[in-house]
Amino acid sequence: MKRSLLSPDSALSRVRGNLTDLETENIASLAARAHGVPDMIPLWYGEGDIVTPAFIRDAAKAALDDGETFYVPQMEGRPDLHAALTTYQADLHGIELGPERTTITPSGMQAVHIALTMVLQAGDNAVYVEPQWPNIRHAICVAGAEPRGVPLDLVEGKWVLDTDKLFDACDARTRAIILSSPSNPNAFMADAQLYRDLLEFSRRHGIWIISDEVYARLVHEGRAAPSMLQQADPEDLVMCINGFSKAWAMTGWRIGWLNHPASVAPTVRAMTQYLNSGTASFIQAGALAALVQGEPTVEMIRTRVRDGVDAVYEVLGRSNRVVLPEKPQGGMYVFFRFDGEEDADPVCRRLVTDAGVGLAPGALFGESFRPYVRLCVARPAEQIAAACERIVAAL
Amino acid sequence: MKRSLLSPDSALSRVRGNLTDLETENIASLAARAHGVPDMIPLWYGEGDIVTPAFIRDAAKAALDDGETFYVPQMEGRPDLHAALTTYQADLHGIELGPERTTITPSGMQAVHIALTMVLQAGDNAVYVEPQWPNIRHAICVAGAEPRGVPLDLVEGKWVLDTDKLFDACDARTRAIILSSPSNPNAFMADAQLYRDLLEFSRRHGIWIISDEVYARLVHEGRAAPSMLQQADPEDLVMCINGFSKAWAMTGWRIGWLNHPASVAPTVRAMTQYLNSGTASFIQAGALAALVQGEPTVEMIRTRVRDGVDAVYEVLGRSNRVVLPEKPQGGMYVFFRFDGEEDADPVCRRLVTDAGVGLAPGALFGESFRPYVRLCVARPAEQIAAACERIVAAL
Repeated sequence: MKRSLLSPDSALSRVRGNLTDLETENIASLAARAHGVPDMIPLWYGEGDIVTPAFIRDAAKAALDDGETFYVPQMEGRPDLHAALTTYQADLHGIELGPERTTITPSGMQAVHIALTMVLQAGDNAVYVEPQWPNIRHAICVAGAEPRGVPLDLVEGKWVLDTDKLFDACDARTRAIILSSPSNPNAFMADAQLYRDLLEFSRRHGIWIISDEVYARLVHEGRAAPSMLQQADPEDLVMCINGFSKAWAMTGWRIGWLNHPASVAPTVRAMTQYLNSGTASFIQAGALAALVQGEPTVEMIRTRVRDGVDAVYEVLGRSNRVVLPEKPQGGMYVFFRFDGEEDADPVCRRLVTDAGVGLAPGALFGESFRPYVRLCVARPAEQIAAACERIVAAL
Repeated sequence: MKRSLLSPDSALSRVRGNLTDLETENIASLAARAHGVPDMIPLWYGEGDIVTPAFIRDAAKAALDDGETFYVPQMEGRPDLHAALTTYQADLHGIELGPERTTITPSGMQAVHIALTMVLQAGDNAVYVEPQWPNIRHAICVAGAEPRGVPLDLVEGKWVLDTDKLFDACDARTRAIILSSPSNPNAFMADAQLYRDLLEFSRRHGIWIISDEVYARLVHEGRAAPSMLQQADPEDLVMCINGFSKAWAMTGWRIGWLNHPASVAPTVRAMTQYLNSGTASFIQAGALAALVQGEPTVEMIRTRVRDGVDAVYEVLGRSNRVVLPEKPQGGMYVFFRFDGEEDADPVCRRLVTDAGVGLAPGALFGESFRPYVRLCVARPAEQIAAACERIVAAL
């Protein structure tokens, strides 16, 4: 022992450097703004207002009744859930994945954390497309790496990714590119060509593509958004994040999955053991029911979301104070701005008190999106319309 | 982009270096040895044979019925569970902790991971007491640091920690000392003096003490093992791991908690959000029931474990091939060796096929414990006695 005496003021001074800067001002903390405001319509969260359907809750309850309260020996997930996921992904995307390329995770967030921890360390960086759900940026910091956001451009009302700009942001220490599609917050959706361009770059430079497809089922046309997995070869440097939260109204269940190359399965298995030691069996029973019997639920949620988007465009479209981009083709949000406002945050605060409507300010999703707001449409269209009427009246 | 062309053989070649070495041969994989063996008595896991009591399962089911399927706004844990934990820890240890020093985690394992990630990075090391549950060593590697095991000594049948040896293993890059008490596998139990010695060292050198107290309730005398929290000041560099798995038969629920200084609460909150975004509300409802109504359950499990230990000592004590240390005063295991055997692994394999008994070989818990085996006693005493009779017969 050679280190000299130390008298830290607080324990915080002995926490790993970059972690003490982690922002805790985020979407979750917005709700505090609504304290004491009556009759709030909270459209700031990424969560709908539907309780998980009874057949999913019943499946979990039946598992509890059956005494499924032990460790699941297969920490990567129950074999029956794996089999159902294999069928589901084959049916949805025409791809054969299987258990060796799939790991069940206790939340999609944990899937992100595992994927990033596997490829990033201090000194590395990760490039991601903005606007982006803030947890991605913070998860990169937790992994010790530098987050580099590359903004989408709004071209004639349409969000466009300039891949030259994306690739130029990469350097010798870039280990991953992260893309969400359909994206949260602005419903940017990758097509097959974009995925192929990313793959070509990945193959050339040995950079991982982490494809967040949590909103894949929430598309307004067709059964699912295109998947990176449809383009990638099995050993391409691709990991795909998914979860049950959005399409089956299971936000509070904390279950997701990670698709990965088979060669990294032993590492993902080990990470699963040493990070969380698996997902509760009765929660997996609920997820299994969702996959097997849940298509009407997905359809219902998708319809709600589409109707919610229509309501926003109908009501806000009448206001000359609101600048709407092209109508989103997927996702769970409308991302728009107020004419002449450089910073939407004060407007958001005012809308809480003056209109009783909660919107998420755009700066949370990337500094260059400060003029924007995110509005979650996963509620009844009448409620969304009412919220928008209030916004228009308050402006 | 300046990096040259790369043609990796597989995606694994692009995973963070030290993670590809993570061992997946561990306790969880021992079960494969039993494949096809009839009438096995599996004493290799750290898990009993009791289904979670009905009142705990009923609380989770009631929460599901009540529609508690949304995100919990307080990601650090439900306020009612926090309040119950505060009361519980005050009652058990005579300490006032409270929500600012407590974070609910989706598994005790995740609490370990969060604690280690907060204090370790590449180039650091963490010193831990051996024999030790293998996940601790691997969790240190996941955090990018070097694990340094310091073995306990067996002195006249009693496990003893030489603190000079422990402190000598620390250097300028040591960020944490990890101690489990009562320990898995050998029931080593820290007393107040040891905790005070560790604290003094921690204060002098700015090294965190991570105290794994998951087995705190499984003591054969008194209500709980001494806790590091009883000795530490609020801002001491102490984090304490705990969980619901062992004392309430909730291994499969994946819920635990982390006690930490209040000053690091914002970092732990942020980590919670960016690693897992909280623990399912209905699982927390089960944990709440366990705390409030679970003392008879704890007493029952404690009695079972003590009776199991007695059964082992009665039966194996008659064999001159078995070397038993002093009877453990806590924990869930007996850790012993076979006379004249340098490596217990082949003996363990033989006992699977010849005796139908599953024991965990000692090398999993530290290289210097290769002659030892771990036997889990969380089963009916008759079954433990029968297993021991088979072992004696097979030797």
